[in-house]
Amino acid sequence: MATGTPHFLSKHKFAFIIFFLHSNPVDGQHFIIPFQEPSDCSPEEFFDISSLSCVACGENQQRSAAGLSCVCQRGFRTVTTELTSISCEACPGDKPAVTRDGFGCIRCPGTVSDEGQCQCPASHVLVERDVRGNLLEEATCEMCHGNGSALSVPNSSGDRCERCQASFIKSGCLCHPPSAPAGGLCLPPGSLSTNVNPSVNFAQLKFSLVSGWFLKNLHSSAAACLSFSNLTACQALGNMCVMNTHSLSGGGVDACGLFNAVFRSQAAFSATQDNSYWRRNLPWLYYGDEPGLASRVLQTDPVPVSFIFRGKKQNTDIKLLAAVFNVRGEFLRWENIGGANLQICPETPIKRSAAFSFGTAYQETCELPVAELLLAHPEPLFYDVFLDLGGEESRKLLPLPTLVLNQQYNGKFINQGSPTNWYLSRRMFLVDALSGREKSASVLPKVVRVAHAVKIKFQLVPHTEQGQVFPPLMTVEYRDVLIADVNAQSVSMSFAVEYEMDQNEARMKTDTAVGVLAGLSVLLSVLRTVSWKRRIASPVVDLRTTLMFFLFYAGDLANVFLAVTVGSGLYWLILYKAQQRASALLPLPHQEEQFVTYVSCAFALKAVQFLHTLIVQLSVDVFFIDWERPRSKASRSVLATGPQKRDPSPVSIWRTYFVANEWNEIQTIRKIRPTFQIVAVLFFLEVLGFSNLALRDPWPTLQRPPQAYRPSYSLTLRYGLSATLWLGVGLVQVIFFTVFYEHFVEDKIRQFVDLCSVSNISVLLLPQRCFGYYIHGRSVHGHADTNMEEMNSNLKREAESLCGQRGLLPNTDMQTFQVALSSRLRSHYDRIRDSFTRRHGPSRLVDAASFNQTEQNIRAYHTMNHFLGSVIDHVHPDMDYIVRDKLALERLMGMEFLEPNDKSIFYNDEGHSFGEVLFYGNEATLLIFDTLFFCVVDLTSQNFTLAAVLTYVQQMIFERIRIFFGRRNLVNKTLVDDRFLI
Amino acid sequence: MATGTPHFLSKHKFAFIIFFLHSNPVDGQHFIIPFQEPSDCSPEEFFDISSLSCVACGENQQRSAAGLSCVCQRGFRTVTTELTSISCEACPGDKPAVTRDGFGCIRCPGTVSDEGQCQCPASHVLVERDVRGNLLEEATCEMCHGNGSALSVPNSSGDRCERCQASFIKSGCLCHPPSAPAGGLCLPPGSLSTNVNPSVNFAQLKFSLVSGWFLKNLHSSAAACLSFSNLTACQALGNMCVMNTHSLSGGGVDACGLFNAVFRSQAAFSATQDNSYWRRNLPWLYYGDEPGLASRVLQTDPVPVSFIFRGKKQNTDIKLLAAVFNVRGEFLRWENIGGANLQICPETPIKRSAAFSFGTAYQETCELPVAELLLAHPEPLFYDVFLDLGGEESRKLLPLPTLVLNQQYNGKFINQGSPTNWYLSRRMFLVDALSGREKSASVLPKVVRVAHAVKIKFQLVPHTEQGQVFPPLMTVEYRDVLIADVNAQSVSMSFAVEYEMDQNEARMKTDTAVGVLAGLSVLLSVLRTVSWKRRIASPVVDLRTTLMFFLFYAGDLANVFLAVTVGSGLYWLILYKAQQRASALLPLPHQEEQFVTYVSCAFALKAVQFLHTLIVQLSVDVFFIDWERPRSKASRSVLATGPQKRDPSPVSIWRTYFVANEWNEIQTIRKIRPTFQIVAVLFFLEVLGFSNLALRDPWPTLQRPPQAYRPSYSLTLRYGLSATLWLGVGLVQVIFFTVFYEHFVEDKIRQFVDLCSVSNISVLLLPQRCFGYYIHGRSVHGHADTNMEEMNSNLKREAESLCGQRGLLPNTDMQTFQVALSSRLRSHYDRIRDSFTRRHGPSRLVDAASFNQTEQNIRAYHTMNHFLGSVIDHVHPDMDYIVRDKLALERLMGMEFLEPNDKSIFYNDEGHSFGEVLFYGNEATLLIFDTLFFCVVDLTSQNFTLAAVLTYVQQMIFERIRIFFGRRNLVNKTLVDDRFLI
Repeated sequence: MATGTPHFLSKHKFAFIIFFLHSNPVDGQHFIIPFQEPSDCSPEEFFDISSLSCVACGENQQRSAAGLSCVCQRGFRTVTTELTSISCEACPGDKPAVTRDGFGCIRCPGTVSDEGQCQCPASHVLVERDVRGNLLEEATCEMCHGNGSALSVPNSSGDRCERCQASFIKSGCLCHPPSAPAGGLCLPPGSLSTNVNPSVNFAQLKFSLVSGWFLKNLHSSAAACLSFSNLTACQALGNMCVMNTHSLSGGGVDACGLFNAVFRSQAAFSATQDNSYWRRNLPWLYYGDEPGLASRVLQTDPVPVSFIFRGKKQNTDIKLLAAVFNVRGEFLRWENIGGANLQICPETPIKRSAAFSFGTAYQETCELPVAELLLAHPEPLFYDVFLDLGGEESRKLLPLPTLVLNQQYNGKFINQGSPTNWYLSRRMFLVDALSGREKSASVLPKVVRVAHAVKIKFQLVPHTEQGQVFPPLMTVEYRDVLIADVNAQSVSMSFAVEYEMDQNEARMKTDTAVGVLAGLSVLLSVLRTVSWKRRIASPVVDLRTTLMFFLFYAGDLANVFLAVTVGSGLYWLILYKAQQRASALLPLPHQEEQFVTYVSCAFALKAVQFLHTLIVQLSVDVFFIDWERPRSKASRSVLATGPQKRDPSPVSIWRTYFVANEWNEIQTIRKIRPTFQIVAVLFFLEVLGFSNLALRDPWPTLQRPPQAYRPSYSLTLRYGLSATLWLGVGLVQVIFFTVFYEHFVEDKIRQFVDLCSVSNISVLLLPQRCFGYYIHGRSVHGHADTNMEEMNSNLKREAESLCGQRGLLPNTDMQTFQVALSSRLRSHYDRIRDSFTRRHGPSRLVDAASFNQTEQNIRAYHTMNHFLGSVIDHVHPDMDYIVRDKLALERLMGMEFLEPNDKSIFYNDEGHSFGEVLFYGNEATLLIFDTLFFCVVDLTSQNFTLAAVLTYVQQMIFERIRIFFGRRNLVNKTLVDDRFLI
Repeated sequence: MATGTPHFLSKHKFAFIIFFLHSNPVDGQHFIIPFQEPSDCSPEEFFDISSLSCVACGENQQRSAAGLSCVCQRGFRTVTTELTSISCEACPGDKPAVTRDGFGCIRCPGTVSDEGQCQCPASHVLVERDVRGNLLEEATCEMCHGNGSALSVPNSSGDRCERCQASFIKSGCLCHPPSAPAGGLCLPPGSLSTNVNPSVNFAQLKFSLVSGWFLKNLHSSAAACLSFSNLTACQALGNMCVMNTHSLSGGGVDACGLFNAVFRSQAAFSATQDNSYWRRNLPWLYYGDEPGLASRVLQTDPVPVSFIFRGKKQNTDIKLLAAVFNVRGEFLRWENIGGANLQICPETPIKRSAAFSFGTAYQETCELPVAELLLAHPEPLFYDVFLDLGGEESRKLLPLPTLVLNQQYNGKFINQGSPTNWYLSRRMFLVDALSGREKSASVLPKVVRVAHAVKIKFQLVPHTEQGQVFPPLMTVEYRDVLIADVNAQSVSMSFAVEYEMDQNEARMKTDTAVGVLAGLSVLLSVLRTVSWKRRIASPVVDLRTTLMFFLFYAGDLANVFLAVTVGSGLYWLILYKAQQRASALLPLPHQEEQFVTYVSCAFALKAVQFLHTLIVQLSVDVFFIDWERPRSKASRSVLATGPQKRDPSPVSIWRTYFVANEWNEIQTIRKIRPTFQIVAVLFFLEVLGFSNLALRDPWPTLQRPPQAYRPSYSLTLRYGLSATLWLGVGLVQVIFFTVFYEHFVEDKIRQFVDLCSVSNISVLLLPQRCFGYYIHGRSVHGHADTNMEEMNSNLKREAESLCGQRGLLPNTDMQTFQVALSSRLRSHYDRIRDSFTRRHGPSRLVDAASFNQTEQNIRAYHTMNHFLGSVIDHVHPDMDYIVRDKLALERLMGMEFLEPNDKSIFYNDEGHSFGEVLFYGNEATLLIFDTLFFCVVDLTSQNFTLAAVLTYVQQMIFERIRIFFGRRNLVNKTLVDDRFLI
């Protein structure tokens, strides 16, 4: 730039730079100018378009009609001696008038008009020049010769005789009665009553008004159409019927009534295009009114076009074409639908074109200012919409049946009921600001009628594998806008394309699946109840049993609903997003209600099950059996009834504390990491864009460019997607943690079992009265309460297999058991348990309790410890037990066949099923509950982030509850001070 | 509906239902029709607009030009005996020609044209009727009288003589040389060289083309403007200059050269509107070319309008007005900018209007199909844009200076450099499809020139408190689109409104703050280094010291950057979103680079500090001192060099296991819940809509309706918002947990200290060589290794204050200390520590190690236990210690003034500052690191959800690392088997 700086014109001849330098730059003024419009100028000024201001005209001048230049005043002729401006010269007295071109003066045969020009009487023409252009001294008024071969009348500007209109010819350019002139035509007698109703009915506003346009054109159009078969007149008549929303009033003399009259008169001619509803010379406005015709038209035969989403023959373009007519009935053009014609809302071409990609639910809505509509649509355009079927040589068009929701018959809306009663029609408009004008077309209309909602609906042929559809239906709902303050008003307009298929079959299948599975789950729940009855060793069927049955049934039914809803959600997701040819279309929002109900049921029932599980876990009976015996032989009989003597070397309680502490810590361990679960699902949905899979279009793309059209979300897909993702991520986590992590990194559950063994402590868990779990933790070294040296050597000996095995039975490894206790054993257990005073006052802490209570508790603790230890050691023959394997069927059914009448039964349990009293063993319930919680929040709010946040809060709250009450239960049941449960 | 079903017309006279019933409904056919256009019809057919098909014409007829009706063939006249259709009749031989109206036959004076009508020579008119409309037997050709008073020439249709154009008058309707006819005018000689350059230069495409429009109009417009001062001709000339992007080529005979020539010639007249750049009769196209004029115009005087965001005088509307001219130079109207005029992209009115709300950064971009542009803009419109200053009686307008980026001077782009060299101009257009047409206006243009990017930029007056701005600058960048395949091409168009203020002051302030604080932090870091030197008891300044200094400095500098960036982010957030009158505008994206650099620096430095902290924590020296002594008096001397004898009642190691396990568990405890932190921040940002605060507009609203315009995000605001939110939520959490939760629910740290005391175990932690922490856990009961009974009674006695206090000094409660060890003590410690073989083989597990090693370790463990116990018990006079309080200044500076030369020093520490070797005590570092991590991810991806997900993953990874290596360190240092750290 430094060298190339232009010095304007300094080097060449147009050195206008000089003037810039000489003039004073007006930096401090911004060159502010006043605002003036042509209408602001006075009659002696014109608007100078260069300076954008009013400038005075010259002498004897006044401003022109447009106000942008000056013309001579009345009685002055224009002189052009100066090239750059005009001047005016008064006409002499003998030639007082100015010629029409303004440059000459002339004598008049008659009077002089207000503009200073000669005036002639009607049907005369003013002649100022002769045939070669010479100005006459005096202008003449000549009468046009109406008869004979001349047949002439003055032209519109009154300076020439022209041939008169054909319909006048017979009568010699005059319309003699009984013929009557109307709209520039001379109508023959009797063709049509002049008693027409030129009013437009605005049903929404509950009034009708006499329209200027109808007043001027209705009768003449109808007559010209009827008498002269004038094509544009017929179209204009049809347009007026369309402007009246195809409605017929009783009298039959409104626009549609007249149209039908003409229609009837054309019956003699053959049908146009083999279509009996389309008469020669007339537009096709109505389908017939045979009962059920609408259903037959819409649902009988498929359109001969296949919509194919993928592959070589891909065809997803919906090609719509419209014949466009103006309000005067002139055919303008064939127009492809897809630009701004039906889609009046401003959208980018990319978004607009999405409306015509098959399968994409399209909806655009906007508020448009009425002033803008009036400006852009002074006259309505009329569209006859067709579906372009293609065809190589001869393209075929399928007319789109149109349903006008506002169509009335004798004041009743006839198209708002069921499809069987619909009356289909043709032709629609978008904005009609013409029929609402009472007088001339230049005044502001009183009412503007707009196509408030235009919807094209495709219906899939049932069971099609070929992507076939029935003829699409166009639904139009007009809205009447009463003009009050045109600059402040706006009107909402919308355009939508919808796709529907018959969902009855899908719904029936879903219902059947729910019914069958719900029936099966009754059996399952009965089984569970029976098993539960055995485990509490109660044979009576009482209210509690019924309650338990319903609790079990709630869980099972929730699973049924979950399976059915996730299954169908996933089915839709896969079927819809992966289909080759259009063979399935998503349920519409109003068809999804049942689905949402099912999901809600699943959630509610699962919540019941979850709460039940939680309550059971919070009241489980637990006891830690310490096998450690004091080292000094003297005090072997720990079982004492009186106050115990001080032992010089008591058995340390710390191992029990350690085990209790660990037990407390694994209460809320899960097979998945709940937070990771939430974060991962959110990552998939919101960051990787999986949420885009739930959009209502058939494209399985994750990332969409920001300028592309985004359809609305389908609730079904949203649910299918989020539930599948949640369950899927959960499953992957469960597999990862159970298969990989717990084998190679750490397994809290196995660690706990190991710890029991190392610390010489067994754990007895009794969630039900006579059923529970036993973890055998008797140390193989006899003593565990020892120093680091011995601990290490013990561990080493065990690692080198120098000592016995840890199992309950000699030479086995089995440490964990399910136990079915005999009633006698349980009664004994309960008797000792009852002496724990704390059981009756769970909220009192040990510090506050009296010494006696504590003393008593300790005694009971020792009693229990000794009793349970001796039971395990087979000391009591009346409360003996046997160890056996569970049958496969027993495992499967979750119940025990053998009743522990005489002897308790210890079932070997490799699966650490004692986890069932922890969160760990109930992962399925928790995961499903979380899934449903997430989905229900999302279905309500349509916001995955909110769903994630609330799920997190929910998990946190229930974990807190579980920890708090679980710890309190542990304190109550094991007498371990809560200060050691940290 | 049942009763109101309409039976069309069955009740009244138009019973057209009959025909429906009689005709066969064609249900199975969909009424499919073939597609036909008017152009498809053969010459003997016309297009029937009723049936939308081609229909044969009658006898002797052919289709009309438009193809929508039939006309008689050549030599046939039209007869209208039938009203509904025409018929044709051959003209007799003596009258072979048809009259112009087609209804008569006539003899010709000369030849018969191809259409079968009479033909006259040039400057003659054809007369077929006399003045009263009677058809002549034979038509005549009359010559128009050019001279005299007639001054007439044939009109355009050649049937009448009219007055010729004013500029011809002098020469009697003929343009005699040296005058020359051009563009319908007769130009006087010498007014302008005919050597004009009618080409348009398309600089982007590197070619110029002779434009049909320029060829036809350039010379005549320039001449008419110059000679006749024709206002529209002057505007048209100016428009051609604008279409040529205001560019001047060397010769000066292109459009702008001619404009400047006329400009120069008008110098004699006074300036229009007091503006020397605006000459009479001419449009104002250029500001002058004085050096620096652009800066003076744009930055000298503020616009006399205040922009006020809130309050009674609220004024945020930017009212723009444009004078609109068409290409022929006609003034069309004043137009409010805001509809579709400058904003060519389709947008809803609500979004469009956001462009003119002061302070809202507006940008709309779209791809528009060229075909659509051609259709909508056959001719360009030209806009002179003004800012409406309002004013009650007389509205004032401020012209917007325009910068055309494509403006060239002699082939150089002159407006793409620095503002001082800019050449401002006026007038712009949006789409010019005219100048690119080579011949007639009907052929497709070769090039279309569009205003690819239109930007209006407001600059705030520095230090304004009144919302004042300088005159806004409109920048236009044109793009030349070469038309290859008009239906496939599209062009991107954009419109933007930008707001800028001078950021130099803000930047200087930021730099100053960073400089000063960085200087201060050097001092702080030096202090830290000195403290660290003392604590490792090393007086030498070596490389390690320098490294440590930089590590400390990294942390401090990160804090400086954080403080400055969060401060300025928050400043912008508050200042911008809460300002009453426009007094601050956001930095533009290119002005944010420095800010982003600062944030990146903060993050990088904080990461260094965080990793350093992590490494220090993972290598901390820890030992658990067991105070428990065996109960049997015999084995009091545990310190043994040979293999120990079996003690009948060894001290149980389980308390140590318990304490170690708990210590292991509190490693990653934090003062906040990190996951809750993430979820809460995400909740605020994404669910409550706080992210909307970071949008570039001055409105502090959280929820925006979906149809409203969404400006882009400001990085500064995004950072300010997310950092503040993160730190804020973190702070609230810290306060909640430290003030409420730890007092009323649970405090893991205090629980650990209590546990130490109850379990009779002290903890010594040595993060540095001679500095560390000591938790005194000696049981007040002497023994803790006892049974439940005694434990409970001990706890009860303590609760009832029946025993001594837990403190290290008698009768004190102080259990936690910071310790500064003397070098001698540390050396002794190290000697024992060195005999732990495991220290040298940290990866070997105890199972794999040989028995000897284990044996040796155990011995060393006992030695260390005994040694440390005896030190605490003041057994070694040479390694004694004293207990004192820390001075306030010592606490503040984080260093100890007294050197532990002779005696070690134990400082009382109520604050549990041993947490500093845990995550717990480094919450500030962790929180800041997380904040910066979150912000940096968000600044990179502009996605809060992704930032949240990655922050979660980051936290998880570092927590895992901390747990894994922390546990390994604990195993190595304390000899506790890792099976007990669960």
